[in-house]
Parts: sequence; structure tokens; C-alpha cells
Amino acid sequence: MFKSVYFYGLGMMGGSLAVAVKKSKITQKIYAYDISKSDLSFAKKNKIIDNYDQDDFKYLSNADLIIICAPIGAYKKIFSNIKKYKKPDAIITDIGSTKTEISNIYESIFTKNSNCFIGSHPLTGKENSTVKNSDASLFSDAVVLLTPVSDDTGLIKSIGEFWCKLACKIFVLNAKQHDLVLSETSHLPHMVSFALVNIILNTKSIEKIGDFTGGGFRDFARLAHSDSTMWQDICLSNSKNIVKSINQLKKELDLIKSLINKKDKKLFKYFQNIKLKLEINDK
Amino acid sequence: MFKSVYFYGLGMMGGSLAVAVKKSKITQKIYAYDISKSDLSFAKKNKIIDNYDQDDFKYLSNADLIIICAPIGAYKKIFSNIKKYKKPDAIITDIGSTKTEISNIYESIFTKNSNCFIGSHPLTGKENSTVKNSDASLFSDAVVLLTPVSDDTGLIKSIGEFWCKLACKIFVLNAKQHDLVLSETSHLPHMVSFALVNIILNTKSIEKIGDFTGGGFRDFARLAHSDSTMWQDICLSNSKNIVKSINQLKKELDLIKSLINKKDKKLFKYFQNIKLKLEINDK
Repeated sequence: MFKSVYFYGLGMMGGSLAVAVKKSKITQKIYAYDISKSDLSFAKKNKIIDNYDQDDFKYLSNADLIIICAPIGAYKKIFSNIKKYKKPDAIITDIGSTKTEISNIYESIFTKNSNCFIGSHPLTGKENSTVKNSDASLFSDAVVLLTPVSDDTGLIKSIGEFWCKLACKIFVLNAKQHDLVLSETSHLPHMVSFALVNIILNTKSIEKIGDFTGGGFRDFARLAHSDSTMWQDICLSNSKNIVKSINQLKKELDLIKSLINKKDKKLFKYFQNIKLKLEINDK
Repeated sequence: MFKSVYFYGLGMMGGSLAVAVKKSKITQKIYAYDISKSDLSFAKKNKIIDNYDQDDFKYLSNADLIIICAPIGAYKKIFSNIKKYKKPDAIITDIGSTKTEISNIYESIFTKNSNCFIGSHPLTGKENSTVKNSDASLFSDAVVLLTPVSDDTGLIKSIGEFWCKLACKIFVLNAKQHDLVLSETSHLPHMVSFALVNIILNTKSIEKIGDFTGGGFRDFARLAHSDSTMWQDICLSNSKNIVKSINQLKKELDLIKSLINKKDKKLFKYFQNIKLKLEINDK
């Protein structure tokens, strides 16, 4: 499918994707660049990649597909570098968690009609960072949201096929829709996890959280282990939607509070209604 | 350890506990009562219990250990019935999710110094209800919180040993502490799950939630599948603590919102600090 695939950034997600790409035989060669030379060296030694770039970007300039797997805060520099070095027909995608800001950065550097970039967001991950925790199975059966910048159907087809070969399921939507939906389904739950864990950690009556981790807490704690830089980037690049989502949640919590305060048997109806809607949605 | 153990209420939790008790050989016989005769009949047929009571409570009057596995809303009637039928030396525990109200009901019916009841709260469960979904493995390695009503060390020892024989880990605390801690570690996370799921289900831009269940949403949806009657009972019997916890969460969400609105790089510190505290706590 490609002669060479290039990972710009090789943390846990990039590394996992590299291993999955290698297994799938989509490409003959896999190259990478990362600010951590020791991680690149580890990845080469462990055959996650074939080789890596020094600052001359020799492999980048020969890559057919470039996948950005780096914090959103680094995209400006990365897109500039890619523009400088890439082959004219090379195509670019990424795995960033927010899309509007990324599309804007791309357009500011490449112009909208350069037709060489389409955003990807694989809805998968785990809490451990660095390439040493790479895990190809992360991508099997994952949903990948594609966010095209222009109407270039060729790009949608190429990158869509790429993900499908990794056993992913793709959905196409625009960057704005993406950021709105993800704000509610992912960013807000993570904010809540951080908030809940912080409340509990500050409670003096609980000495060791581990002793009380039944009843729904374990999953929240898991989310709050997520990478801090990534979550700062997500918050700052999708701030309007996330603030809106937080306000919605506060309103919903007020509703629950008022039902509790009224000692209202409508609580049952409130819970039951959600459970039923969820079951219909599961079908 | 006991000649007979009696389950007053035999849903998924009671059924699971009955299966675990049977496996452990703690008792010679297991009996039960439930408002659903067909569930009792199913349980007998499938050897989860040896036999069950009709309304004469024949087996209840011979039981050595009585375990209440019913909604908190039914405890008044249940304690009255137990008082009427139980042997003088029979002891009682339960598996209810809140403890102060249960202790109060017990004291109002039995008096505080009857020394026949100690609360238990196994921090385990799953979303499917009814005895047909019984699963003995639920109790293996589970934490069980014991909430004594009086200082009777004999009761703590007997019931403590009972749970230990099921491979549970026990902690003793008073009912008030229990309700405070659980309000933060379990009740609040559940309220948030219901709230988050409701927000998402009402979002028109999301047709099918299942398509977007990466990124932290799946766990929340799982919690919102929980039994509606149970959660109404929990909310109404631990209302003060839960309302307080909701207010704390709203305050914490406001803090996150202000950091986002200020486009503040302190967000990183906020997340990192929680992650580090969590890692220290995990050790």
C-alpha cells in the first residue's frame, strides 16, 4: 500500500500504531522521528521501526505516508517541518484528540487546498506512556474518526483504507462536529475523573484509596492516570466545548440534587429512564 | 461454622453470595425468602439454595445466620419479621450500600443493645439483576466494610470470619464514616455516570453512542446500567452526604473551568499533581 510510513512522534500511541502497521504489511518500511533519541534507539533495537531520522530528516523526505503522533502543542513546528521536507505526493494524517485547532494549524501552514492532510482520531489508548509500552492490539476493532479538511475524496479513501487494514472501523465527520461530540463523550468524562479523584485524595477520612475501590471508583481512577500534557493540550484546544460540557453537567447534577433534596420518588424514574434509553441505544 | 444460613432477599447479589457460601462449606444448609416465588423456585432447582420459605417463615425461625439482601426500602418490614421469627441466638447481617439509616431502623426495632446485628457492605457487584445472574466469583477478593451497631466484639469476630472464609478482606468502621466515604467513592461516581449518560443521550449530534465509546465513556455507561430502585434507595438514605459530595464536585469542576478559561498552563500542574498523588496512593 505504501513504500514507507513515517511516524512523527513515537510515544506509546505512535509505537503501538507502528507495531500494528508492521504486522499488517501495509508498508515495506517504517521510519520515525522523536525528540527522545533513546526512545527511537529502543524502537529500532526492538524492530518497532526500521530506522529513524536525525535532524536532517532524510527518511521524512522519502516517506509516502506521514502520521503525526505528537502533542497538539507541537503541531505548528511539525507541520512546518513536514512542509519543508516532504515529497510532493506524500500524504499526512495524525492521531490527535481534538481536530478544529489542528485543521486550522494545517491550513495556516499548507493552505486549505493543498489536499495532503486528513485528520484521524483513533478512539483507543491506555494510561502508560512511552514507546516501551507499545501494544499493537490497541488498534484492533478501534473506531477511527476521520476529519477531512477539504472535499478530497482520494485522501478519505487512502487513509480510510489504511485504518481498515488495521481492523479499525471508520466514521467521517467534520472537525467541528468531532470536537463537540468528543467534548461530551471523552473530554468531560476525563475532567470529571480528575475532579473526583482529587476530591477523594483530599478527604482525610480515607487513608488508602485502594481499600475502597469497589463501587465504580476504579474506572475513574484509571482515567485520571492519563497523560497530563495531553490533557492540557486537549483542554486548551477544545476549551469552548469543554466549558460548555462542564456547564451542562453542573446543570444535570443540580437536577439530581433537587430530586434528592425533595426526597422525590421521581429519582427512580430519572434513573430508570436513562437505563432504558441506554438499553435501546445498545441494540 | 453455621448449621444454616438464610438469605432474606435473593436477587443477583443474594444469589451470588449464596453460591459463594455453598462453595465455601461454611454451612450445612442454605435457605431463602424472596417476594418472587419464581426466583426462589429457580434457585432451588439450580441448587443455589436447599429450600425456601413460604409465608410461615419456617426456615427463618431455625436459621443461625440471617443475611438481608434486599432494597433498603424493605428493611423496616424485614427487621420486624426477623424479630418475630428468629431464634434467640441467631445473628443478622446484610449487604446494603448505606449504613446509617439501616442502623437506625435496626435500633428502632431491636434496640441498640440487642447485639444481634452488624452491617456488612461488600464492595462488589455487577449490572445484571435477578438470581439467574448469580456469580460466586463476585465475592472473591472483595473488600467488605463492617459497620457494628454496638461494641459487641463477638459479632464482629463471627461476621468477620464469615467474610474471610469467602476470601474477602474486611475493614471495620462506623456507619457514619461508611456513608461519608462511600458517598465520595461510589455514590457520587454513580450520580455522575447517570448525569453524563443523560447528557450524551440527549445530544442530537450523536446518533448511536456505541460508535463513540472510546475515550473513557464506556465505563460511565456501565455504571448507569445499575438498578434504579437500588440507586433511589441509596440517594434517599444517604441524601445529606451525596448532596454535599455533588456540591464539592461542582466546586472542583469550577476550578477546572477557570483554569481552562484562563488558558492557563497550570492545567498541566493540576492534572500532574493528581496523577502523582494517585501513584503514591497506589503503592
